[in-house]
Amino acid sequence: MSRSIRLAVIPGDGIGQEVVAQGLKVLTAVLPQDVKLETKEYDLGAKRWHATGETLPDAELESLKQHDAILLGAIGDPSVPSGVLERGLLLKLRFAFDHFVNLRPSKLFPNTATPLAGRPDIDFVVVREGTEGPYTGNGGSLRTGTPAEVATEVSVNTAYGVERVVRDAYERANARPRKKLTLVHKNNVLVYAGHMWKNIFDKVGQEYPEVTTDYLHVDAATIFFVTQPERFDVIVTDNLFGDILTDLAAAVTGGIGLAASGNINPTGQFPSMFEPVHGSAPDIAGTGKADPTATILSVALLLRHLGFEPQAARIEEAVAADLEARDGAARSTDEIGDALAARVAG
Amino acid sequence: MSRSIRLAVIPGDGIGQEVVAQGLKVLTAVLPQDVKLETKEYDLGAKRWHATGETLPDAELESLKQHDAILLGAIGDPSVPSGVLERGLLLKLRFAFDHFVNLRPSKLFPNTATPLAGRPDIDFVVVREGTEGPYTGNGGSLRTGTPAEVATEVSVNTAYGVERVVRDAYERANARPRKKLTLVHKNNVLVYAGHMWKNIFDKVGQEYPEVTTDYLHVDAATIFFVTQPERFDVIVTDNLFGDILTDLAAAVTGGIGLAASGNINPTGQFPSMFEPVHGSAPDIAGTGKADPTATILSVALLLRHLGFEPQAARIEEAVAADLEARDGAARSTDEIGDALAARVAG
Ligand SMILES: CC(C)[C@H](C(=O)O)[C@@H](O)C(=O)O
Ligand SMILES: CC(C)[C@H](C(=O)O)[C@@H](O)C(=O)O
Repeated sequence: MSRSIRLAVIPGDGIGQEVVAQGLKVLTAVLPQDVKLETKEYDLGAKRWHATGETLPDAELESLKQHDAILLGAIGDPSVPSGVLERGLLLKLRFAFDHFVNLRPSKLFPNTATPLAGRPDIDFVVVREGTEGPYTGNGGSLRTGTPAEVATEVSVNTAYGVERVVRDAYERANARPRKKLTLVHKNNVLVYAGHMWKNIFDKVGQEYPEVTTDYLHVDAATIFFVTQPERFDVIVTDNLFGDILTDLAAAVTGGIGLAASGNINPTGQFPSMFEPVHGSAPDIAGTGKADPTATILSVALLLRHLGFEPQAARIEEAVAADLEARDGAARSTDEIGDALAARVAG
Repeated sequence: MSRSIRLAVIPGDGIGQEVVAQGLKVLTAVLPQDVKLETKEYDLGAKRWHATGETLPDAELESLKQHDAILLGAIGDPSVPSGVLERGLLLKLRFAFDHFVNLRPSKLFPNTATPLAGRPDIDFVVVREGTEGPYTGNGGSLRTGTPAEVATEVSVNTAYGVERVVRDAYERANARPRKKLTLVHKNNVLVYAGHMWKNIFDKVGQEYPEVTTDYLHVDAATIFFVTQPERFDVIVTDNLFGDILTDLAAAVTGGIGLAASGNINPTGQFPSMFEPVHGSAPDIAGTGKADPTATILSVALLLRHLGFEPQAARIEEAVAADLEARDGAARSTDEIGDALAARVAG
């Protein structure tokens, strides 16, 4: 456990600024006094792009590398063409820093509203591949804008990329009480990528005899997310399926306001990046209505990644206790941050 | 309205045989006496493949063309490698017969169990593109089975293919009371295909000034499917997103046992094909536990497509009444078929 944290902060767009402020508040409150926290803020996102046309200049990318971790708020604004900031900034970071484990835990906390009747017992983790699949930007368009246009998107999958994320998922499953791992893909249609995933999943599984395995097509998985979410423990899946499934998971566990994520480079070669699953929500930016809990839970993942397990657990317990104590009255972004900071400090 | 129907029947695998039998029972019961129904059964699926290695021989494909429509049960069996029958038979039919409109209505009938608390008022239709996207089989694998393997899947999208399905969706939206159409894609990541879809969606929309439009990323759409499904009227989306969303839609509207679909060639050049959304469910095949309602509702779509609107509506009303009258006692496949046949005849 290092006794100092050099943290890069990218508040980004919309509610990003507001939720990141609360994340830092709770981080400061939970850290032992002898741990030095150095933060450096990066001005990236829609404003920067409008001002300079830049999304993520090389110099900034180099500078970001000098940190132990990155805390990111949210990226994206309706004033910027769809894809410019997502591809040019958010995905560029995930790819440049080889964040091949996109970790997204889903837990139904007590006293939170789920759209599901019967409040199933939900506690699973999605290990979403973060550097391949249909997210590589490998595609193109021919005769753009004409009636003869052809547009392609190529999902690129390598044994190298699949094996490392599958192995990470087995490790996580093996460390959990239920020791269950489900592969989600669509290998009855996407036969090339799907069979490679399945073969590697089966091969690596031989090294983890205690882990029970299962395979589901992505369409069937969405059914179980709403009818039987308690069946899941750890899920491993590709970049696009993971994107879709984790939004659905967030929805059934109390909403996107609670869903945390870590873009992790397990080798430590580059800094890992932690961010709420939600977007920049421009419609409520500046109103104090954003729930900072997802960002605060992302700070817990950040602490765990850096070796501060007790502090990570403290935040998670504080969130559970805070949700349990809720009386239904609306609270501002700031009030939720204050309440959680008080709990973790106390 | 033709006064005879030449129907090709492909029972397929698992519960396919059982549910198709009930579909035909109800079809026979609902048809006016002067309409001649000629059926021809095709032995295609796992058994055929094991016996001969064939999935869909050219001669059979030619013969199928001679029909007004196709009723299909289910395709797929664990004894056959994943993808062989799906690609070689089911998707081959959809592609060969240019079923570019994969129509999947979702309605929460009274007295059916939904996993959603609060029983939202769900009544929407997904128009899933059926002949392009990541379903084209355009991909490959290099150094297969080695640690250096690379596997690709190419999503192919053409302005020709997108415009025709988008136009069909506008027509359907325009004909419904709410006149609302939502495009679902992921154009912040899949920028080539996504922007083409969005541009065509906007362009065609100018011809339908009365239709209200909306765009959602696929991940966000899954959230609304469980938190606010009543917001949807008609949805148009690509082949893969449509596959995922319609299973989720089935789950929230009482389960895959009720979800019908039509693979439609609106030009009439080739026969359209109607099938339940569910699979072959080998675990319950032969037990009489399969719910034939999805197949029977698919027969309603078939009748509507062939111009038998009153008969289609009669089946849908019979299903609604039958579900409403349920007392929770388990009924066999046959009993449900009998009950619905009696209702439509009465
Ligand atoms: C904003 C977008 C590029 C991103 C993604 O698709 O990964 C988001 O949806 C997420 O899940 O983090
Ligand atoms: C069996 C499979 C190929 C098929 C699909 O993916 O289209 C099924 O899931 C469906 O939705 O009809």
